[in-house]
Amino acid sequence: MSNDRTKISWNGWGWTAHRDDVATNEAAWTWLAAELGMPSLLATPARSLEDIALAPSRLDPSERAHFARVLGEDRVRDDHFERAFHARGRSYHDLLHLRAGNLSTAPDAVLYPRGTEEILSVLSFAADNRIAVVPYGGGTSVVGSVTAAAESFKAVVSLDMSGMGRLIGIDNLSATATAEAGIYGPALDKALRAQNVVLGHYPQSFEFSTLGGWIAHRGAGQQSSRYGRAHDWLVSAKLATPRGLLTTEDFPGSSAGPRLTDLVLGSEGAFGVITEATVRVQPAPAESLYTGFLFRDFASGTAAIRHAVQEGVCVAMLRLSDAEETRFYRAYGAAGKRKTLGSRIADAVLRYRSFGDGAAAMIAGFEGDKALVERARNRFGEIAKQFGAIAIGDSAGKRWYQGRFHGPYLRDPLMDRGLGVDTLETATSWSKLDALYAAVKNTLEDTIRETAPRPGARGIVACHISHSYPDGASLYFTYIFPRALDGDIAQWQAIKRAATDAIVAHGGTISHHHGVGEDHLPWMVQEKSALGVDVLRAIKSTLDPKGILNPGKLIPS
Amino acid sequence: MSNDRTKISWNGWGWTAHRDDVATNEAAWTWLAAELGMPSLLATPARSLEDIALAPSRLDPSERAHFARVLGEDRVRDDHFERAFHARGRSYHDLLHLRAGNLSTAPDAVLYPRGTEEILSVLSFAADNRIAVVPYGGGTSVVGSVTAAAESFKAVVSLDMSGMGRLIGIDNLSATATAEAGIYGPALDKALRAQNVVLGHYPQSFEFSTLGGWIAHRGAGQQSSRYGRAHDWLVSAKLATPRGLLTTEDFPGSSAGPRLTDLVLGSEGAFGVITEATVRVQPAPAESLYTGFLFRDFASGTAAIRHAVQEGVCVAMLRLSDAEETRFYRAYGAAGKRKTLGSRIADAVLRYRSFGDGAAAMIAGFEGDKALVERARNRFGEIAKQFGAIAIGDSAGKRWYQGRFHGPYLRDPLMDRGLGVDTLETATSWSKLDALYAAVKNTLEDTIRETAPRPGARGIVACHISHSYPDGASLYFTYIFPRALDGDIAQWQAIKRAATDAIVAHGGTISHHHGVGEDHLPWMVQEKSALGVDVLRAIKSTLDPKGILNPGKLIPS
Repeated sequence: MSNDRTKISWNGWGWTAHRDDVATNEAAWTWLAAELGMPSLLATPARSLEDIALAPSRLDPSERAHFARVLGEDRVRDDHFERAFHARGRSYHDLLHLRAGNLSTAPDAVLYPRGTEEILSVLSFAADNRIAVVPYGGGTSVVGSVTAAAESFKAVVSLDMSGMGRLIGIDNLSATATAEAGIYGPALDKALRAQNVVLGHYPQSFEFSTLGGWIAHRGAGQQSSRYGRAHDWLVSAKLATPRGLLTTEDFPGSSAGPRLTDLVLGSEGAFGVITEATVRVQPAPAESLYTGFLFRDFASGTAAIRHAVQEGVCVAMLRLSDAEETRFYRAYGAAGKRKTLGSRIADAVLRYRSFGDGAAAMIAGFEGDKALVERARNRFGEIAKQFGAIAIGDSAGKRWYQGRFHGPYLRDPLMDRGLGVDTLETATSWSKLDALYAAVKNTLEDTIRETAPRPGARGIVACHISHSYPDGASLYFTYIFPRALDGDIAQWQAIKRAATDAIVAHGGTISHHHGVGEDHLPWMVQEKSALGVDVLRAIKSTLDPKGILNPGKLIPS
Repeated sequence: MSNDRTKISWNGWGWTAHRDDVATNEAAWTWLAAELGMPSLLATPARSLEDIALAPSRLDPSERAHFARVLGEDRVRDDHFERAFHARGRSYHDLLHLRAGNLSTAPDAVLYPRGTEEILSVLSFAADNRIAVVPYGGGTSVVGSVTAAAESFKAVVSLDMSGMGRLIGIDNLSATATAEAGIYGPALDKALRAQNVVLGHYPQSFEFSTLGGWIAHRGAGQQSSRYGRAHDWLVSAKLATPRGLLTTEDFPGSSAGPRLTDLVLGSEGAFGVITEATVRVQPAPAESLYTGFLFRDFASGTAAIRHAVQEGVCVAMLRLSDAEETRFYRAYGAAGKRKTLGSRIADAVLRYRSFGDGAAAMIAGFEGDKALVERARNRFGEIAKQFGAIAIGDSAGKRWYQGRFHGPYLRDPLMDRGLGVDTLETATSWSKLDALYAAVKNTLEDTIRETAPRPGARGIVACHISHSYPDGASLYFTYIFPRALDGDIAQWQAIKRAATDAIVAHGGTISHHHGVGEDHLPWMVQEKSALGVDVLRAIKSTLDPKGILNPGKLIPS
């Protein structure tokens, strides 16, 4: 089962048929313009694909014919739509280029392999012929991990893994499953649930991302507190490289030197193409409960999370919005006049006026068998109460759950109206979290003001904690701002640069779960040290001596 | 706080003052001789250190003087005892050499640095002067990880980390602690408990091994089900290399490429010298309960463990002996006529005759706060009962706990009487466990018979599961056998080779928690694949271009 690509947007998020509620909610737009200090919002539609020219494919006819022999004629595609679809990922930065009609990074062809042997053959040929290969899962990267740019190569092909979407098997005794890496989230989940197990990895991109992609960028699903991140659930992987197939260890525990499986995690297509993976699975949860809390402020909510994870309460998710994010939901709900998550929070805030503007909303999730869910919920409820929270009910949780994959759809209508919206995320230890939060928030607000298209214009900078650990937590920032239409890419770069500098200066990682790609590459030496980057470079040189795999990502040249 | 080395055996296990009970238990020796098919046991004492000659140190006076300038005169040692003490680790194989007076691997000097800068200076000088450096923690390796052999170098020094044993600090908010890598287990535990936290890493070598050693060989403590293995608790490390200091990431979670911290785990001194580490700590457990069960057979006990870990029951340890190990404890207890762990198991077996010779004893441990211990104990008790076990009481658990670090002391008196005793361990997925168990057990029994000093002589081959995971478990074999005194090293090699071949053929790892060292090196290509070993070699070449660090370990040349 694979997603029908013709029904997925080539220059925006997700299903083209999906319409975000906000698009037709005029009250929300009016409110938003005022919030951003803009007298009005401009219409800034994307260019249509038919109007955009593409450079001719640089692939020689003989090379194209070779790939067609290896893969089959219908599995080498170089039509306009295929090349445009695979030109970039789906970050705000990508969308700026795509919507403006800049397809300079379109691959020269898109290849659809059906097996590991075919991929090994493609890589070998590509290495011999100076053809760069960009592994492509669902293409949902928001850090420029699949940009098909490779100027120093003769040509570049996108290696689309969607033809490798089989669940290979389940080992019930060992509670593991093996699947081809190109399997989409929903297909994997459906196949596993048919046998009463789950992987439990549900990132926001779930509907459009693949198993291989989750591993390649070392991802974390929304319920990582319960099911772990890729780093926790990956047992073993097959990595096709220009030097042959690397099959990593599949032992439940081993002390025989560093674990090669760990090197596949976060390899971003630069070390090899993940073709298969064996993952730990768990019984499908009998119960799944999401409920809301309101804390007096972000700090007390943060303390409650820390308390709960250090105690080991079996939560699936604790998602705490800061005051600005909570206020945004409230106002958006009020503007929409519907019983949304926002309006329910608004109602609760009204009822408990003493909470004031600093109130911070939390969605807490619990999954497992009935007894476990009940025990975890009760215990977390006690902790929340101890930190001064009030319960705002399961319906708030239910609404969050229903819309848990829909956030990215908001971006396209915003971009249609002269606005920009981007997200960035980081993580650090509990003892550095407050300072990191303040620094990034202030930097984003300041830089948005400085790069705004007119005086008085400003941004909305919202943040939530979405993943927590005994030793620290992640911070996820969403920021909406008026676009500098005469230089929106430079504006994005200025904001990104300032925010990431602030992250590094305050001891945060440059990415908690999005990855490195092109966008975080300039900070990799600061993240890993020069010597550490040398180590990554040596690994790449060993597996990919000609450097054909996903050039310009992960490892600074 | 450091261990007083003059009170530790240079050619055997642990405190020289310790006397194992068995040494004076004549009934046990009589029983053992009969079990092994030997008419009598020979006296085979170790050679005394005074009678053993050492080759002169190959270190130039100018080189020695250089190290003395960097470290201080009293921190460069080349006396007889120091060189002998650091010649090898403490495996059965090591002891064969040491007891026979073979000190050909004694280092030319032993260096005792007091800080990271000193180590960087030593490594830089050593790299420039073709001097090999063998990092040395507690020296308890049982796989030849600290053998100070380096024929292709001008000289070899042992870098003893015991002078770096400080707890640097605790971050209470983040629940992490940072310590120098040379800190011994008891010193670290004491310093942490003074602040009401624990790391929870208690390998059998605990009293004589160090934090750095646990990380370098990717170890697992006896309570790894509760506290995790090094792979789980290590946050960050400082690795001193000939190319400078590598400080790895300290984020609670990151997707910014492969994690360098993971490369320090299992690096065995071949990539660098671990000088400091930050680790996750947990509240010191209020309760600690160990109790015994008796299963009808190994298979039903194994199924109970699998059931419990896959369900997520919060156990600290589930240690299941196979029939032979259970029988050995029983018989040893009966021969000793004391109320030992063995005799209590014996009593239980007598009471439940229907269990017969296949009965398998388990020690189950639970640690944490009172409520958690009670809940976990009750739930595991239900599972054990469901799989046909009977409870044999907390006193069996208590006795196991009291003697949990004493196993290795048994080896010296056995070796004094013409016997050999070695252990090996592996791990695999649950679905391969039965076949792996049978293959290794049969191979050990057969090879011991084939290499025995006389017809009819045989071994005792006992096994237990000591570490378990949702996807599989470890197997730990202990085997006692009559030594072929005219070729005991060849005998050991034959047994080791046959057993490890069987492990590899049946999908087990060559080591679950002992490491690679010299002893498992011949199987590293099978464990990691040729391409995988190339990757490890590339990492080493990047950090240690001259190859001075622990040559002949971890990575096949």
